Amino acid sequence: MIKTIAWKDNKVIMIDQRKLPLQEKYVVCKGYSSVIRAIKDLVIRGAPAIGIAAAMGVALGALRIRTSKMDQFKAKLDVVCGDMTAARPTAVNLAWAVERMRRVVARNSHVEVAQLKSLLVAEAEKILRQDVAVNRAMGRHGQRLLNDRSCVLTHCNAGSLATGGYGTALGVVRAAVEAGKRIEVLADETRPFLQGARLTAWELVEAGIPVTVITDNAAGYFMQQGQVDAVIVGADRIASNGDVANKIGTYMVAVLARTHKIPFYVAAPLSTIDFAIKSGKEIPIEQRDENEVTHFQSKRNTPRGVAAQSPAFDITPHRYVTAIITEKGVVAPPFKTNLRRLVSLKEPSLE
Amino acid sequence: MIKTIAWKDNKVIMIDQRKLPLQEKYVVCKGYSSVIRAIKDLVIRGAPAIGIAAAMGVALGALRIRTSKMDQFKAKLDVVCGDMTAARPTAVNLAWAVERMRRVVARNSHVEVAQLKSLLVAEAEKILRQDVAVNRAMGRHGQRLLNDRSCVLTHCNAGSLATGGYGTALGVVRAAVEAGKRIEVLADETRPFLQGARLTAWELVEAGIPVTVITDNAAGYFMQQGQVDAVIVGADRIASNGDVANKIGTYMVAVLARTHKIPFYVAAPLSTIDFAIKSGKEIPIEQRDENEVTHFQSKRNTPRGVAAQSPAFDITPHRYVTAIITEKGVVAPPFKTNLRRLVSLKEPSLE
Repeated sequence: MIKTIAWKDNKVIMIDQRKLPLQEKYVVCKGYSSVIRAIKDLVIRGAPAIGIAAAMGVALGALRIRTSKMDQFKAKLDVVCGDMTAARPTAVNLAWAVERMRRVVARNSHVEVAQLKSLLVAEAEKILRQDVAVNRAMGRHGQRLLNDRSCVLTHCNAGSLATGGYGTALGVVRAAVEAGKRIEVLADETRPFLQGARLTAWELVEAGIPVTVITDNAAGYFMQQGQVDAVIVGADRIASNGDVANKIGTYMVAVLARTHKIPFYVAAPLSTIDFAIKSGKEIPIEQRDENEVTHFQSKRNTPRGVAAQSPAFDITPHRYVTAIITEKGVVAPPFKTNLRRLVSLKEPSLE
Repeated sequence: MIKTIAWKDNKVIMIDQRKLPLQEKYVVCKGYSSVIRAIKDLVIRGAPAIGIAAAMGVALGALRIRTSKMDQFKAKLDVVCGDMTAARPTAVNLAWAVERMRRVVARNSHVEVAQLKSLLVAEAEKILRQDVAVNRAMGRHGQRLLNDRSCVLTHCNAGSLATGGYGTALGVVRAAVEAGKRIEVLADETRPFLQGARLTAWELVEAGIPVTVITDNAAGYFMQQGQVDAVIVGADRIASNGDVANKIGTYMVAVLARTHKIPFYVAAPLSTIDFAIKSGKEIPIEQRDENEVTHFQSKRNTPRGVAAQSPAFDITPHRYVTAIITEKGVVAPPFKTNLRRLVSLKEPSLE
């Protein structure tokens, strides 16, 4: 299986998701600035994956700091962490991963700088390892929601490529298939970046899971035809009340699913839940360059002089969410109480 | 203003809508087969425009029939009419226009073949002229529904390029602007063929009407932000109960508009209403080549071996439609009775 991201010889290697599925190219990051650029430019995307990238970026940044004085090291690493957190605003996993790295520093102020650097690299690699384990746990819990011979509609890519491996929404699909169920996937192409047409389709073709690509416009049509049994998407941030920030267009799919009485599931690790905010209204929505709408693969397809807007995410209010699939189990509404309760449960080891 | 379609020197000239807005090229059709190809290949699209093209195609077919015997002429023209009607299945205007041409034949069986040919050409040109007048009448009626400083969201292109000129949905916008109202348009890009990003944007930039292109995925986001005051779309066929067949994705926009209590208007000439069918369930939905989804401007963007589906239209049930704007006035629900009543009104001359 192709790895989304890896740490190798003190470098971070990512598959270039802008070029998939037609080209398998890799980007090698030697410093933390190039990790930030890779995140901003969508070389790597998907909330869990950019969390891992951010942690590895902080580790890279730490390695490149030339001082043996702990105070100086901490001050410089603090800048690295701040820059990394600012790379993209919506997915909370990025801030969560950077916070884990900060805690390694806080816990280990008595050690030598060189040792702290090793601990930071180890923590980044642990975040990657844990993410895969978390996804497999989500898959085990979530796959019970799917019947044999189901058609699952998904939006964007919440698969291996959006995570350390296996995937969140697609992890649930993979787990159902591993449990012997026959699952078909309808993949929304997901404009403007086509994560569905390019990445979800590619992953599922590789996995031998039947997949049909449709335009985002056709999701309602297939629901109306009775061809969709469940919707499963990932998330970039979940507010404590269960409001879900995810790829632009998710909200439309959720409303249509409700209209057709189709269950709408969100698969996301607990690191995606932001208990610091009450509702989706507090989640910042990244506005991306309008060229992503006016151009397609660098080729203009709109008249010169036209305006465009490219919000990258939208908020699905919690009332449209049937359940949230996490590594600790499936959470039903009311999310405000049930998410808190779940997190307070004793954490299983996912090492 | 650039003309969508014209009859000139016994040839049909169409602007090539596949190449807009970056290239303004024209296709010249000398025979009816090339008109059929132009309709199938989307050189020309939009229900009223393909109706006009079909009428002109029949006229071209008539001119090329080499016989002075009326029986032979009629038999051959019947084949032309049948082929033309089969060019695309969903828009009823195509069949409506061919039927108008057939009636010219039925009414004039006493004349010479040469004279009948002239009458057929005259009828096709009249259909074009009337379409523009019909659009202007629709605009006058429909613009009253829009307040000053409104933002109108539209899907696909229901403008000059979809008609003989002026447009249906965009005709309403033009009329509101001509009435002194400040109207902004949010244009869904409308995958897979990008009629919104390419054609609606181009027309409105030319007309100096503020337009912002968004992905189809973002329509729900802008409604949620309170930025959309009304939705206006065209139609390819309207059943007698008011169910609307229109470009794929229209249904999703309609459901979202209802969720946000935004009025959802359909602007269409009476020729779009198919009183022969009771509901949208009877409207055939054209399934187009999956390459339109797997490729973008002839360039593949999906993994090899992946399946795709490309329904070209969807059905918006009448309960989501606030009103239908026609050349005879604005029709409110219940459409089943109100559409019939409207049609039975004395026809105003729109010559």
